[in-house]
Amino acid sequence: MSFIVSDGSDPVATVQILLEALPYIEEFRGTVVVVKFGGNAMVSPELFADFAKDIFLMHRIGIRPVVIHGGGPQIGHWLERIGKESEFVDGRRVTDAETLEIAQMVLLGKVNSQIVTALNAFGPVAVGLSGTDATMLEVEPHGDALGFVGSVTKVNPALVNRTLANDMIPVVATIGADSEGQIYNINADDAATAIAQALGAEKLIFLSDVPGVLRDVDQPESLINKLTVDEALDLIEDGTIAGGMVPKVLGCISSLEHGVGSAHLIDGRVPHVLLLELLTSAGVGTMIMKGTR
Amino acid sequence: MSFIVSDGSDPVATVQILLEALPYIEEFRGTVVVVKFGGNAMVSPELFADFAKDIFLMHRIGIRPVVIHGGGPQIGHWLERIGKESEFVDGRRVTDAETLEIAQMVLLGKVNSQIVTALNAFGPVAVGLSGTDATMLEVEPHGDALGFVGSVTKVNPALVNRTLANDMIPVVATIGADSEGQIYNINADDAATAIAQALGAEKLIFLSDVPGVLRDVDQPESLINKLTVDEALDLIEDGTIAGGMVPKVLGCISSLEHGVGSAHLIDGRVPHVLLLELLTSAGVGTMIMKGTR
Amino acid sequence: MSFIVSDGSDPVATVQILLEALPYIEEFRGTVVVVKFGGNAMVSPELFADFAKDIFLMHRIGIRPVVIHGGGPQIGHWLERIGKESEFVDGRRVTDAETLEIAQMVLLGKVNSQIVTALNAFGPVAVGLSGTDATMLEVEPHGDALGFVGSVTKVNPALVNRTLANDMIPVVATIGADSEGQIYNINADDAATAIAQALGAEKLIFLSDVPGVLRDVDQPESLINKLTVDEALDLIEDGTIAGGMVPKVLGCISSLEHGVGSAHLIDGRVPHVLLLELLTSAGVGTMIMKGTR
Amino acid sequence: MSFIVSDGSDPVATVQILLEALPYIEEFRGTVVVVKFGGNAMVSPELFADFAKDIFLMHRIGIRPVVIHGGGPQIGHWLERIGKESEFVDGRRVTDAETLEIAQMVLLGKVNSQIVTALNAFGPVAVGLSGTDATMLEVEPHGDALGFVGSVTKVNPALVNRTLANDMIPVVATIGADSEGQIYNINADDAATAIAQALGAEKLIFLSDVPGVLRDVDQPESLINKLTVDEALDLIEDGTIAGGMVPKVLGCISSLEHGVGSAHLIDGRVPHVLLLELLTSAGVGTMIMKGTR
Amino acid sequence: MSFIVSDGSDPVATVQILLEALPYIEEFRGTVVVVKFGGNAMVSPELFADFAKDIFLMHRIGIRPVVIHGGGPQIGHWLERIGKESEFVDGRRVTDAETLEIAQMVLLGKVNSQIVTALNAFGPVAVGLSGTDATMLEVEPHGDALGFVGSVTKVNPALVNRTLANDMIPVVATIGADSEGQIYNINADDAATAIAQALGAEKLIFLSDVPGVLRDVDQPESLINKLTVDEALDLIEDGTIAGGMVPKVLGCISSLEHGVGSAHLIDGRVPHVLLLELLTSAGVGTMIMKGTR
Amino acid sequence: MSFIVSDGSDPVATVQILLEALPYIEEFRGTVVVVKFGGNAMVSPELFADFAKDIFLMHRIGIRPVVIHGGGPQIGHWLERIGKESEFVDGRRVTDAETLEIAQMVLLGKVNSQIVTALNAFGPVAVGLSGTDATMLEVEPHGDALGFVGSVTKVNPALVNRTLANDMIPVVATIGADSEGQIYNINADDAATAIAQALGAEKLIFLSDVPGVLRDVDQPESLINKLTVDEALDLIEDGTIAGGMVPKVLGCISSLEHGVGSAHLIDGRVPHVLLLELLTSAGVGTMIMKGTR
Repeated sequence: MSFIVSDGSDPVATVQILLEALPYIEEFRGTVVVVKFGGNAMVSPELFADFAKDIFLMHRIGIRPVVIHGGGPQIGHWLERIGKESEFVDGRRVTDAETLEIAQMVLLGKVNSQIVTALNAFGPVAVGLSGTDATMLEVEPHGDALGFVGSVTKVNPALVNRTLANDMIPVVATIGADSEGQIYNINADDAATAIAQALGAEKLIFLSDVPGVLRDVDQPESLINKLTVDEALDLIEDGTIAGGMVPKVLGCISSLEHGVGSAHLIDGRVPHVLLLELLTSAGVGTMIMKGTR
Repeated sequence: MSFIVSDGSDPVATVQILLEALPYIEEFRGTVVVVKFGGNAMVSPELFADFAKDIFLMHRIGIRPVVIHGGGPQIGHWLERIGKESEFVDGRRVTDAETLEIAQMVLLGKVNSQIVTALNAFGPVAVGLSGTDATMLEVEPHGDALGFVGSVTKVNPALVNRTLANDMIPVVATIGADSEGQIYNINADDAATAIAQALGAEKLIFLSDVPGVLRDVDQPESLINKLTVDEALDLIEDGTIAGGMVPKVLGCISSLEHGVGSAHLIDGRVPHVLLLELLTSAGVGTMIMKGTR
Repeated sequence: MSFIVSDGSDPVATVQILLEALPYIEEFRGTVVVVKFGGNAMVSPELFADFAKDIFLMHRIGIRPVVIHGGGPQIGHWLERIGKESEFVDGRRVTDAETLEIAQMVLLGKVNSQIVTALNAFGPVAVGLSGTDATMLEVEPHGDALGFVGSVTKVNPALVNRTLANDMIPVVATIGADSEGQIYNINADDAATAIAQALGAEKLIFLSDVPGVLRDVDQPESLINKLTVDEALDLIEDGTIAGGMVPKVLGCISSLEHGVGSAHLIDGRVPHVLLLELLTSAGVGTMIMKGTR
Repeated sequence: MSFIVSDGSDPVATVQILLEALPYIEEFRGTVVVVKFGGNAMVSPELFADFAKDIFLMHRIGIRPVVIHGGGPQIGHWLERIGKESEFVDGRRVTDAETLEIAQMVLLGKVNSQIVTALNAFGPVAVGLSGTDATMLEVEPHGDALGFVGSVTKVNPALVNRTLANDMIPVVATIGADSEGQIYNINADDAATAIAQALGAEKLIFLSDVPGVLRDVDQPESLINKLTVDEALDLIEDGTIAGGMVPKVLGCISSLEHGVGSAHLIDGRVPHVLLLELLTSAGVGTMIMKGTR
Repeated sequence: MSFIVSDGSDPVATVQILLEALPYIEEFRGTVVVVKFGGNAMVSPELFADFAKDIFLMHRIGIRPVVIHGGGPQIGHWLERIGKESEFVDGRRVTDAETLEIAQMVLLGKVNSQIVTALNAFGPVAVGLSGTDATMLEVEPHGDALGFVGSVTKVNPALVNRTLANDMIPVVATIGADSEGQIYNINADDAATAIAQALGAEKLIFLSDVPGVLRDVDQPESLINKLTVDEALDLIEDGTIAGGMVPKVLGCISSLEHGVGSAHLIDGRVPHVLLLELLTSAGVGTMIMKGTR
Repeated sequence: MSFIVSDGSDPVATVQILLEALPYIEEFRGTVVVVKFGGNAMVSPELFADFAKDIFLMHRIGIRPVVIHGGGPQIGHWLERIGKESEFVDGRRVTDAETLEIAQMVLLGKVNSQIVTALNAFGPVAVGLSGTDATMLEVEPHGDALGFVGSVTKVNPALVNRTLANDMIPVVATIGADSEGQIYNINADDAATAIAQALGAEKLIFLSDVPGVLRDVDQPESLINKLTVDEALDLIEDGTIAGGMVPKVLGCISSLEHGVGSAHLIDGRVPHVLLLELLTSAGVGTMIMKGTR
């Protein structure tokens, strides 16, 4: 078409690709997708910018994303900066009052704020929320050994739902309070699972720094693309799924048993991995779903 | 990324291109775009399918398209089929009662219905409307010589606005009625101009079978990409814009003077020309806008 | 009252009669009444004008009419006009692609449009809809022998309900599409039954050119005014109800079993028969209702 | 139609008359009509029943009536019953505390309640209101000589509007309170005028026991059907309009100058006079309207 | 704080006391509290003013009060005034047509109006309703001996609920009508019980002129503060609860069995007794509640 | 009343005091009150608890509080904790990237969160917001010397208004972003002024650690209770108002000139000073208002 004036890229190819995304847009239109965004994923500014752009585009094509985040590395960094050492029990940080104070400041004041600002750079769409807002996350102590680490006992999803109904993106820091008003830090994976269940999300996606479930943890190419609940339980039993992956996979399974459509473990180190998963035929990471294979 | 399983296309490039469309999506989000779709554009099934897909994708990314259509060739075809000959005055078909009957059947029963069905094949989004529904288009006779050809005297946009507010795509056949209930056929370019004005549309796009305004009508590469109202009037005066292009350009100018943001003459023979115009940096056809260049 | 100035009619009698209609107005206020309007009923301009006025008055006194129409005679007329002969199987027209094209044009472009225009002559109240709008009527082929004649598999009543909620009158042409987007013609009696069920209508009224169910088909005065479902089934079994009346009565019975309040077979040749049925003590045609007599 | 079974009346004539009312129904649909109902009009049970039926039918065909009532004769009757004598100044009853007590009881407890009950006998549509509800009528003393007789200083129409928006009929007793909470009786003509203005009513109708404005007060046939404001003022000046008719006509004129569409003085002794006025071509009483004749 | 300028009272103590009321405000926020206000309670102007202020403050802190009132003493006073003698059967006044007329006038025109006016002196919050408005109270004759005394057969709570939803206080006079439109007087205790049930009220409070349930009717200090349903039934059986207290307590029990949260018999002669009950730790009167002690 | 059972306090006095607050409750019902809460006020846990209780009670009696907070002392504390020294220019902290990082963490992660949690301990009413949420606060650099200290150029109040409309209390940390998405710290007094203007607040209250405007800064009893804008400007000119009080008073004046009803400088060290100001006749601090004295 000699009369198409272009700036160098190929507009015709562009349009073709947009149209190929249409079936995916249709599939996920209007659905709630809970994305747990790990602190690890913020380490690279490029990946962080990719993440924000992906969430924003999801919102614009009609998906309703909910971002849940922790901030382990950032909390660790600040504890170090003030010379405070941490102890860990079962991979969870023992949280005394001073650690809680730092954790809260880092989660709400730094991580949450950065995500909100990055999203709002595209348009006024994101609202930062804490699990203490409107009593969203009710918790009890996870156990004496861990101090102010809380387990979610109840999710009050009204504020998240209102935020979604206002066509905005909730970004939730995983701080909660018990019935006395005492604040606790909450494991973000656990919080994401609980929130996805309370929302009846279509998808629960864990963005982390591993490719997904691997048959051989040393071989990225041994990635398993799809797992049923039964298969996942078998792999836990035979030790294929081990270590920190076990609670993540159990969280996925629990969410599926409480109404979530599918759960995904995907690799936040892959640029635009969320859009690859949602809008293309590429299989990234591991999807866990109900039913028999 | 060895662990991305693909079906042959390149998901990474796909995602990249989707993201490049984001600024355009933002720009047109929520805006009303009136598209006049000429009967000529339906001749090729491929182009027709492209058109439907484009309108649907526009809808899905938040644009609010309104489709206005005529059906000259199809009406001609059916008049021929029943052995009825037509007379033309100033390029408009003289419309006696029998011709009106055929025109109405073809417009509503064939053209409108085909467009609605093609759109709804993607999802339940389109509603077929006639200008007689809810007294949308009020007309008076265009002139004695033309018979039942009407000029729009008033647009009642409530039904179109309600349809848009219900997140659906109005597809309007340009039939109207006078205060006595007598039906008239309406020139679709005129109707599109009147409706775009009544809606305060962001864009009014004429899809036809010419590339746009050409400096030299025999040289497609002489296409003029942008024209101000003053420039357009000059080109009409000096005869560069002539023939059937004159009323189209005057319609564009009138719409701009009544609140429409910009008017476009683009070539319906170019595949996915609507998306090329709206979502890429490609310049297709001629844009007429207010102000001085 | 010497000081009442009148134009010849008797205002006092007029008011008296208006008040006698009040109990009927109360009874049907707010209820959905589905009226299947046969193509036969449009043959007389007077009867057609009566019909439109009746529907409009029903709307104005708070009834919510839904008009469903076919157009057999009009389709036949146009097929004849282009010299196309039809074949019939079990009283239904075999519909090849060309016949479908004509049927669609006639139904939407002529019959639907005429009804909408006639209603809107009183005020902007009617909206023409096709069963393909917003995927209202989902169909499958009725059988190989009939070609593009479809059976309704599902009604999506959202668009009709929204139209009613907007205080407008839906006028539905009985065209539908299958999951591939292929269009089919639908028997209007069947479509009216399916739509009445989907809406939970208070009344389903078939306007046709017979007086109702007759004990002796040659004796109009043998009209049966009321039938229970059981009685109707008995009359089908013993052959009193026969021929084209059987599917109509079975449709009535089916609708009653799916939540419709009562079903009526009335004679469209009687002027203002709808108002006679709804607003006076006159018994017109046959009412079929649930329960034992 | 031998197959129409009737109960003696003529259903066909009935339907014909209903249809003749249609243009009037269209004209007044959705408009607010304030009806001042005088205590005189309640004397005859038949006329009272007619009045209730008329108001109810008005409501059912889409008019929004507001009934304002006084109760002079009933108050007089009760004052007499307890042996209390009244003094009158300029035709208004001097109202001491005891008279006020009786007036209030009679207006709210008897007249208002009877009207509400009579309307609700047809369906749950009427709500009894006092001008003291939600501070609807703010008053000041009319003058020292009259005691607790108030002049309306402000109308707060929110409660009446909400009642109309709930599709119900407000029936208002013309009691008001001053800023101290002291209650006053209000002349019902004045209150009706003030409320009609505050509502922007289409019509203000005074139902009383005279035929309207007469050229010769002794000749009912000298009734004037239509008056412009200027003509009315002339007739007051030349003494044709005199006595108690003067404030009524001045109220009409004031309401017209504050946005009311037309004002009517009609004879409550004529059965169904409201429907005669609204739904037939009969000219009853006197209509006063803006503009020059 | 030397820089606090006060008018003599102690602002600091004031604020302290306001804050002590906070837990009570929280507890009753948004709940419906039906208060039956006896005619006896209006005898003292001071107590009546207290009552109005209490109801208004309840409304302002988020409680949703519904006032139900009778007017026995006022009716008796007026009957006496016109020289009409009453007969009583089982403590209920035999109500002939004339008595009904007086009762209705007094209830609606005097008692209801006084309560509404007293409340609206604080702000436009109260709406006077009769049980005949919108067919709120459907009744049948209580028995032949009593004449026009009605028993509630059905409560239509829509109008009360709409009034509450509009953030206003319904004040209900206990007049009802049977299906013929005949009006009846209703015992206010019975009406309050029926309305509280229909609303699913949190509390039903009877304000009367006794302290509550007493173990020894001559010893005010023998007041029983809390009773379960079983205990109350025992006290009726053993004669501790006797006379006019029996139907009140049975009404309480019935309401508890139909969804009311708790029922209270409190002493309207105690200034601000409603606020004492609702907003302080004081135990006033007798609370009857479900369950075992 | 011997039958009132109390727990030692005096319920009758309690109720009396509640009722004395009623005129104040009426006055401020539904009004927006912006409270700037300084970091100094959080130093005492008792005062902080008082503050939270006051805000909550304000909310419960119908006032709509908006809390704006800074956190100077807390930021200083954390900067010290990591050994970072601050420089000040004109009383404002020079904010480099590291200081901004700490400021943001402290404001959102500590101060905001503590306020939200303290409020929600009474009921789920508070939502923590940052000026970066939904692009609420748009800023530009305050000046090169101060680094990332921003001046508010525009307030987008939609999110605050939606939060109020949802009957919740917005708690806003004064962080904003420029059009590039760069974050800035904002002086909380300035932000409160800008937000109060954008909301058209009834009152803007600065809670700080001084008694108000003093004629003699060393004499608390020289407090000025009321100042007009002109008087305040005079006092600035003659040096009575000096130092850090000048920008606060200028902020008050600016807000008054842009629609705020009144501005208050009150002493956060006085327990329950907000309720003293709003609900009692005590004069606390300095009120600045429009007009001449």
